[in-house]
Amino acid sequence: MRALVIDKDGSLRLREDFPKPKPGPGEVLLKPRVMGVCSTDLELAKGYMGFQGVLGHEFVADVIEAADDAGQPWLGKRVVGEINAVCGACDLCLKGLREHCRQRTVLGILGRDGAFAEAFTLPAANLHEVPDHVSDDEAVFTEPLAAAFQIVRQLTIEGRPYVTVLGDGRLGLLCAQVLGQLNATVRVVGKHAEKLERAEKWNIKHRLLADVGMRRDQDIVIDATGSPTGLPTALGMVRPRGSIVLKTTVAERAYEKPIDLSPIVIDEITVMGSRCGPFAVALEALARNDVDVLSMISRRGQLAAGPELLATASQRDVIKVLVTP
Amino acid sequence: MRALVIDKDGSLRLREDFPKPKPGPGEVLLKPRVMGVCSTDLELAKGYMGFQGVLGHEFVADVIEAADDAGQPWLGKRVVGEINAVCGACDLCLKGLREHCRQRTVLGILGRDGAFAEAFTLPAANLHEVPDHVSDDEAVFTEPLAAAFQIVRQLTIEGRPYVTVLGDGRLGLLCAQVLGQLNATVRVVGKHAEKLERAEKWNIKHRLLADVGMRRDQDIVIDATGSPTGLPTALGMVRPRGSIVLKTTVAERAYEKPIDLSPIVIDEITVMGSRCGPFAVALEALARNDVDVLSMISRRGQLAAGPELLATASQRDVIKVLVTP
Ligand SMILES: [Zn+2]
Ligand SMILES: [Zn+2]
Ligand SMILES: [Zn+2]
Ligand SMILES: [Zn+2]
Repeated sequence: MRALVIDKDGSLRLREDFPKPKPGPGEVLLKPRVMGVCSTDLELAKGYMGFQGVLGHEFVADVIEAADDAGQPWLGKRVVGEINAVCGACDLCLKGLREHCRQRTVLGILGRDGAFAEAFTLPAANLHEVPDHVSDDEAVFTEPLAAAFQIVRQLTIEGRPYVTVLGDGRLGLLCAQVLGQLNATVRVVGKHAEKLERAEKWNIKHRLLADVGMRRDQDIVIDATGSPTGLPTALGMVRPRGSIVLKTTVAERAYEKPIDLSPIVIDEITVMGSRCGPFAVALEALARNDVDVLSMISRRGQLAAGPELLATASQRDVIKVLVTP
Repeated sequence: MRALVIDKDGSLRLREDFPKPKPGPGEVLLKPRVMGVCSTDLELAKGYMGFQGVLGHEFVADVIEAADDAGQPWLGKRVVGEINAVCGACDLCLKGLREHCRQRTVLGILGRDGAFAEAFTLPAANLHEVPDHVSDDEAVFTEPLAAAFQIVRQLTIEGRPYVTVLGDGRLGLLCAQVLGQLNATVRVVGKHAEKLERAEKWNIKHRLLADVGMRRDQDIVIDATGSPTGLPTALGMVRPRGSIVLKTTVAERAYEKPIDLSPIVIDEITVMGSRCGPFAVALEALARNDVDVLSMISRRGQLAAGPELLATASQRDVIKVLVTP
């Protein structure tokens, strides 16, 4: 079958001869309808985490095969799926921290072939049915939108806090929309006027980074920049005893010099890492039209376009790139 | 008067001709009975934060002069004192975050001459009377002990968490004692067997760093190392969704290479900075003999010994150095 693969030599290529996977116990076979390109895909393609195999972890798909009873009820359904496949038996799974399972594989990221293919597998336990009135183009945003909602699960929002979202990319704009629905004063800060202007119609304040002072007056700063300068900038903006939420990882090689972390201690900042989030909450928000994802689609292409399609996702003016089979 | 001073050229020297200070409005003049040497003093002496003036922020002292009514009731009393002198009027003071006052001076650390002198000043509002049955040698530990108690104020301790305190120095051993009183399984991990053995009589588990695996299984890790390897080590020990408390700052120059912060995101770790703490709680613990500070006194010397006395505090086998006027 056709698949977009990081090969053993680390190069990203479109392969037509990739073996079609078979669902294992408890798993289903999925045929993607639409896939989304994420910054993590771009990082993995550069060698981050040493991943080999099929890329892709954002998708809406049809369930076309089930290995056993666990998958049977899902046959024929249109679904999205959580990306962590877990053991259910390790200390962390038993503690309720399944997303952090010590034996986990992660779709298209860690030890498990991803969705940029004609078919792929996931445990049936990971699936969520997409409500009929949520389109494919909307549903494909479920995974990153869930990641944005994770922030709300982790933070205690009290009073009417000042919140800055750093980063005007895919994830930053989703975070800004999600936080904009809370009792908070939200602004999104980025480097690209043409991306930031999306926030206009969502009634979310937006500012160019160059125009924003480092006043240490924000209650909460979300770093969704994927840049090594994200955390130092956040430390310059957050108030003493405030919180910084890190939504994006930065490859070690990207740091030009060590970050001065002493403000974390001196100002008693709380820095929280935040990764995958609640799919059900994200699907519900899409179903209720609480979040506008369609305005974020910049490009669209076919899987056959291969590596070039992925490359467009890192262009300056591009927010979201969708892929069809 | 005699004072241990960082001069304009950055060198640490004992001066005999330092001008005796006058208490300003709301302030008192203090005559130290005993002073303590802290790692921050050693850092400041190396140029950290560019501090100039009299060093020293751990003390027990007698109130010998009051500038006005605010200080009058304190005359003749034996006191310890909070080290942040605040404006009371800025946004952070008004928000109840006085220790983070934007206009603050900090005794012997930032814009205010410290306690390693024959006399020094502080606002009367900063003082706490020392109970009669708490000795000078105990009371001088109030400030660092309060800093240890700050952790308890910041963390939510649920269930019976596994806690590792990294660092067997002055602050690490205080943190271990404070956390050892909670419903937690506490171990202190360090590099010096001769320091760690102090934990024996406190019934606190202790291990050499070289003997401890990086298992990512600790619920809470306290970094009290003052070392650039403290945070990476903590990240290797803490479990997913666990907490790291940073108690010590690291001068930027100390980092040899950037720290890989991606585990914070991937494992959704919470990293909390923690600085000054509640003096009243610390004094109460000393009064109740909940904490053994006397076993931590390694050396004792007179202010006249000057820079050499400070130097002994960085010796391998030394925990706490006390200074008498
Ligand atoms: Zn992603
Ligand atoms: Zn597991
Ligand atoms: Zn100190
Ligand atoms: Zn203030």
